[in-house]
Amino acid sequence: MPIRSRIRTIPDYPKPGIQFRDVTTLFQDATGFRLAVDELLKTYQGVAIDKVAGIEARGFVLGGAMAHQFECGFVPVRKRGKLPWQTIGRDYALEYGTDRVEIHVDAIAPGERVLLVDDLIATGGTAQAAVDLIEEAQGIVIGCCFLIDLPDLGGSRRLEARGYAVHSLCQFEGE
Amino acid sequence: MPIRSRIRTIPDYPKPGIQFRDVTTLFQDATGFRLAVDELLKTYQGVAIDKVAGIEARGFVLGGAMAHQFECGFVPVRKRGKLPWQTIGRDYALEYGTDRVEIHVDAIAPGERVLLVDDLIATGGTAQAAVDLIEEAQGIVIGCCFLIDLPDLGGSRRLEARGYAVHSLCQFEGE
Repeated sequence: MPIRSRIRTIPDYPKPGIQFRDVTTLFQDATGFRLAVDELLKTYQGVAIDKVAGIEARGFVLGGAMAHQFECGFVPVRKRGKLPWQTIGRDYALEYGTDRVEIHVDAIAPGERVLLVDDLIATGGTAQAAVDLIEEAQGIVIGCCFLIDLPDLGGSRRLEARGYAVHSLCQFEGE
Repeated sequence: MPIRSRIRTIPDYPKPGIQFRDVTTLFQDATGFRLAVDELLKTYQGVAIDKVAGIEARGFVLGGAMAHQFECGFVPVRKRGKLPWQTIGRDYALEYGTDRVEIHVDAIAPGERVLLVDDLIATGGTAQAAVDLIEEAQGIVIGCCFLIDLPDLGGSRRLEARGYAVHSLCQFEGE
């Protein structure tokens, strides 16, 4: 498990009972980072992709590397109020309150094939909001990929139930 | 100017008199993004690099692509309170008040050769704080690179005066 073993687990962060999966230890490891990106690239080898959409902020690191290798565009899916131009946005529920992701109105052209990427999928609220945004821009979501899936939290299952192809490099469950 | 012409200028953002240079139009353009990353890579061809340090958040997009191609580690230089593990940090002055950048205490090992990357250098406050952090971790800053330099604001000149090699792909001045 050359990828999984390079991810640091921080107990009780950001609050008691949560095991935080910290990918910075994977990113800062030359072999680990290379392997992780290459594994994600391999999954979509031969697939036509117009844009990689990366979710702020760790999805930017992976998405930048992937878009460069696919020779396609990169679209940042950002938190509320971070983009400087006209945006479309989607709210999604948090444990308390809501959050919002946004893309520029001209980030994706109708019919473009978009791959969504983030470091981790848990309940999938952010990913689902991002997928909805891409479709609002009339992009076609050709897949959603993550380094880590927390299957107990059901996010990947929910995306799959909506018909999206989900791929993750490793799972942490029942811990 | 295949790179410069793909950068969108947003007048009076975030406040009157500021011409904001928006790199999302470059990033989302397959040719432009590829060219920009490849130009940055070419600058450091044959140079030994252990880590690329990218400044949050647009530096993550470039830095991820560069670290993957250099087959080295990627270190996120993040804003205050974003990193989950023990950090070292540097405050730097803003027009009003201060801000802070942080890296994990174990992000850089003593003697590692680190390349700093961000989308833009203006006054250079963030970049200088990042350079100081890398050196506090006993890393060796082998260069600082940016898509855009705003030379009127003096940041690149100040970094060079401190002995750092600065490289940028395009400049916007006197506008």
